Amino acid sequence: MLLDKINIKEKYSKFTKYWSPRIIAEMNDYQFKVAKIKGEFVWHDHKDTDETFIVIEGEMLLKFRDSEIKLSKGEMYVVPRGVEHKPCAENECKILVIEPRGVINTGDTVGELTINEDRWI
Amino acid sequence: MLLDKINIKEKYSKFTKYWSPRIIAEMNDYQFKVAKIKGEFVWHDHKDTDETFIVIEGEMLLKFRDSEIKLSKGEMYVVPRGVEHKPCAENECKILVIEPRGVINTGDTVGELTINEDRWI
Repeated sequence: MLLDKINIKEKYSKFTKYWSPRIIAEMNDYQFKVAKIKGEFVWHDHKDTDETFIVIEGEMLLKFRDSEIKLSKGEMYVVPRGVEHKPCAENECKILVIEPRGVINTGDTVGELTINEDRWI
Repeated sequence: MLLDKINIKEKYSKFTKYWSPRIIAEMNDYQFKVAKIKGEFVWHDHKDTDETFIVIEGEMLLKFRDSEIKLSKGEMYVVPRGVEHKPCAENECKILVIEPRGVINTGDTVGELTINEDRWI
């Protein structure tokens, strides 16, 4: 029954693609995902769930329609359900995202950045 | 609607007591809690939920009945539901615990370390 412990930072060495979250752990029906981000993501929301961002390294900007929040290493933010947001990062930023299993990264804003499969590392 | 961002490490300066988790954020019906730990906690399990530990600073030992796992800064572990565990730390360790709202820290092992109230910081 004993699982392996997870070294969060080590996981980032296992992939290079931006905006391509990888699952590293599950707790009940929630997933922990590492992602590298750089540039601008798409505007989207998640109608049915909050979404947690934790910055592991670097800085990210969470844009909202009427404001924005800069998150640095060791800072976190919970985007409430239904709130449109656009994650951005001027330079490469490593983040940890926590959300229920099955959440689509782009919400209803389906496009080339949309990821529909579970990718574990 | 805009919430404040949360600086995880800063939260530890707001309390001193060991084994006394404080809630810093909620995502749906899940809570993020910071805790300082030192010494040995009690054996317990959570029958209905997994529980996630992330070490923010220091080292902790998760003892199980038949093994143990040492977690250092930046490492995480998800204790599966129903699995007896005993968190320990030789020196002060700062951790982030993620679990559903309403989980009792000692499980059914009610005693002087049991906390029944939601304490936000």
